Amino acid sequence: MNGAQSLVKTLLAQGVDMCFANPGTSEMHFLAALDNPAMRSVLCLFEGVATGAADGYFRMNDTPASTLLHLGPGLANGLANVHNARKAGSGMVNVVGDHATSHLKYDAPLASDLDGLARPYSHWLRRADGPHTIATDVARATTAARKGRIATLILPGDASWGEAGDPPDCPIETPVFHAPKPGRVDAVAKIFKNPEGPILVILGGRACQGEGLKLAGKLAAATGCRLATQFFTGRIARGAGRTPLERIPYFVAPALEFLKDFRHIVTVETGEPVAFFSYPDSPSLLKPESCDVHGLAEKDEDGAAGLDMLLDALGARTVAPKRQERIETPVPSGKLDPQTIALALAAALPENAIVVDESLTTGRNAAGFTLGAAPHDMLQNMGGSIGFSTPVATGAALACPDRRVISMTGDGSAMYTIQSLWTQARENLNVTTIIFANRAYQILKAEYANMGFPELGPRAAAMMEIDRPTLDFVALAKGMGVPGLKVASAEAFFRALQKSCAEPGPMLIEVCL
Amino acid sequence: MNGAQSLVKTLLAQGVDMCFANPGTSEMHFLAALDNPAMRSVLCLFEGVATGAADGYFRMNDTPASTLLHLGPGLANGLANVHNARKAGSGMVNVVGDHATSHLKYDAPLASDLDGLARPYSHWLRRADGPHTIATDVARATTAARKGRIATLILPGDASWGEAGDPPDCPIETPVFHAPKPGRVDAVAKIFKNPEGPILVILGGRACQGEGLKLAGKLAAATGCRLATQFFTGRIARGAGRTPLERIPYFVAPALEFLKDFRHIVTVETGEPVAFFSYPDSPSLLKPESCDVHGLAEKDEDGAAGLDMLLDALGARTVAPKRQERIETPVPSGKLDPQTIALALAAALPENAIVVDESLTTGRNAAGFTLGAAPHDMLQNMGGSIGFSTPVATGAALACPDRRVISMTGDGSAMYTIQSLWTQARENLNVTTIIFANRAYQILKAEYANMGFPELGPRAAAMMEIDRPTLDFVALAKGMGVPGLKVASAEAFFRALQKSCAEPGPMLIEVCL
Repeated sequence: MNGAQSLVKTLLAQGVDMCFANPGTSEMHFLAALDNPAMRSVLCLFEGVATGAADGYFRMNDTPASTLLHLGPGLANGLANVHNARKAGSGMVNVVGDHATSHLKYDAPLASDLDGLARPYSHWLRRADGPHTIATDVARATTAARKGRIATLILPGDASWGEAGDPPDCPIETPVFHAPKPGRVDAVAKIFKNPEGPILVILGGRACQGEGLKLAGKLAAATGCRLATQFFTGRIARGAGRTPLERIPYFVAPALEFLKDFRHIVTVETGEPVAFFSYPDSPSLLKPESCDVHGLAEKDEDGAAGLDMLLDALGARTVAPKRQERIETPVPSGKLDPQTIALALAAALPENAIVVDESLTTGRNAAGFTLGAAPHDMLQNMGGSIGFSTPVATGAALACPDRRVISMTGDGSAMYTIQSLWTQARENLNVTTIIFANRAYQILKAEYANMGFPELGPRAAAMMEIDRPTLDFVALAKGMGVPGLKVASAEAFFRALQKSCAEPGPMLIEVCL
Repeated sequence: MNGAQSLVKTLLAQGVDMCFANPGTSEMHFLAALDNPAMRSVLCLFEGVATGAADGYFRMNDTPASTLLHLGPGLANGLANVHNARKAGSGMVNVVGDHATSHLKYDAPLASDLDGLARPYSHWLRRADGPHTIATDVARATTAARKGRIATLILPGDASWGEAGDPPDCPIETPVFHAPKPGRVDAVAKIFKNPEGPILVILGGRACQGEGLKLAGKLAAATGCRLATQFFTGRIARGAGRTPLERIPYFVAPALEFLKDFRHIVTVETGEPVAFFSYPDSPSLLKPESCDVHGLAEKDEDGAAGLDMLLDALGARTVAPKRQERIETPVPSGKLDPQTIALALAAALPENAIVVDESLTTGRNAAGFTLGAAPHDMLQNMGGSIGFSTPVATGAALACPDRRVISMTGDGSAMYTIQSLWTQARENLNVTTIIFANRAYQILKAEYANMGFPELGPRAAAMMEIDRPTLDFVALAKGMGVPGLKVASAEAFFRALQKSCAEPGPMLIEVCL
């Protein structure tokens, strides 16, 4: 077999059976090798869709996906969502085709410093030496990706088409996240025993779902501490029956207010709260000076194990965890505003939905109102690069074909990777895309004020408005094969949501504000 | 004034009065400073539109444009078209906002190795030290960009908002391209005097227009040498009255055939012909072994000066240059195919149009048929990263508001940066976008065969088809405020082209194949 076949065989042996692809000429042998019934190849019209989909897929699946990208520019197009995935701890195996080694010296049009480009956002990076070593490379890349790392394998044409022999047997290495050291847990236990003031436990990473979340619920029930997440978290299990988590506000002033009375912050698989952006005369760190921060578990440690050890030290293992009750939300009526939108969402959310949340302004209130909705997972953008939700929703839907994915985004954000809609139509994915169309980069208007500008000059103001011409998202969706409708009232929004959840396949709802 | 104001003032003093922007929070002070009537800020919904527009603007204008990009991911989104611009020798000044210096250590969501990311595709790269040195940085960046270089200035928030004082007076440095050394010209002159076989002169860079092109026409008239370009060239002045240039074919086999009888190749502001991609058992270099290659002028030298010196050495300065005659093309009728499409284009092309050519399969024949059309400029993709034409057309239209821009692209390519249409509508640009909708990555099917695969497996074949669902480009254009129509016959295509050229503003024509 050739190198490309060895690559695909090894991916499959490592449990990677999903490839988000945007191929080019230099990846023809890889493409030929993908013609394998065990591998699902999903075509994306833009590389940012492929890498974002790999992020969403990882968040909802135990095994990473691979991507197929076309030389330096193909990788470049995918990097913004690689950045978001990296910050979320979502692993992926990026396979980036390159010219054959002998061709590189001629500086052909698509030649560039591909290694230099891949380095900043890859945890693991390798240029395949030749066809014989590809299998080992892929096994290592997959091991890194399974641990939540960005693995990038550069695949020169000759490594792809050359004779590789049979790939060696590379056993799957299950990722290990170590429990925190007992001394660290004991120090935190001492604080809980003698707190001298309120304690906030901030959960991140894998601790916001499953066992970690349940154990945090026990801790809250036993000690009265409050539980929160950063403003953005990779995946949170929430809704009725789950332990509820508060959300530290996004803007600096309310975040300072939220944190001001805590004596201790205990972090689990996350760091201490920092401002998303920097502003003149505004702090980067959000906690008060009088508050001490204690790391119970680092990002690459086992937060659930740390919480279990802590509960043991506190003698609270058998306490019943704090749980959110179901709140039946009546169907809202009247004008669409952040509150009625959030209520409609809470009322319509089906059991076990996946909510991908990229609404920066309009949808921001939704989080509070959906706390008591049907159980669901929420995926948020950890890297801040917009154009996140539609690709991530695409990947999440492929990972969980039996669940409805609700992708919430603003009109500005949606336009970065709008090509996702086509893949959703092609694969008939159960994704409801909600566009909050306020015809502006609304977040920037708030941020402009935060920077201390009293008012906008007309030219600067125009650069935050996307109302001229008005984007017609229903037409855009139609152009890519996705049915869509516009709604202008809370009832219509609710009905549209219900309808989209009742019918298989994708739908787009343009919420006209 | 603050650093951002100093930056904008210096850009303007350096003659840079166009900014393609996709701003974010970290660029709020820059945005505020852009509120200056002397600076034209053009909003782009995606960064690849901004950098591609800067490329098109440079090709049609003496002075570069600037871009405003938002941290690492914003730059990443723009890099594919930066790559294309770099290969074309199109300069631009990228201003990339970053967090304030004091905020970087907290690894906030949007923090990344921005310097590492910018390095591979920037000729000139600097992180602003502080507000006081920004003016000098900008003057240097602009000098580099004016010479056709990619200049990237990373602008931390504190450098932007801190007090800068009045910017120093930085005179504009006009770029100098040196004439080739006389010895090199003499060596080439000797070959022309005693050629021992046919000579091909390959023109690139600035030599494909203006004085360089005219001098090459004299050389051809005086010596009988043939004149050609590489398959892709940044800008060619062509049509009736201009010196006609042949085009070296794209695929390896016809390129070898085209070049096989030449004894000498003389290159002017370009290199010797190399294959676009590498294939197993296929050469990278396209000339026959018996052919010698002579560089008359390197890419950064003055090819026109070299040609003038050569003509002088040959005593041919006063020869009348070879010129293309006007060929009146009758309006074609019947079925749309590559030939009738090319004929319709040749017949409809208005005087002084700018043709941006990204049609990889269907439109490829157009070049031959438009040689005798009305005089026009043709811009091609030197970097091979698709998603080129719609942004470049946007920038070209802004540089030349009185000229019609015809942007030809395939359906696959168009989807990478389709957001350009919105900017074209917003700025009411005279751009006709022609989508050759063959519902496939048609080029890949040919390349698959070139790689030696006898037939496609069904899964690999599906990855080259974009027909499921069918993209409706008229709906996509409507979604972004651009009127569009579908055509299915040669007459209808011609009429649509005529109509679009007669009416101001953008239009999209979907050519259904």
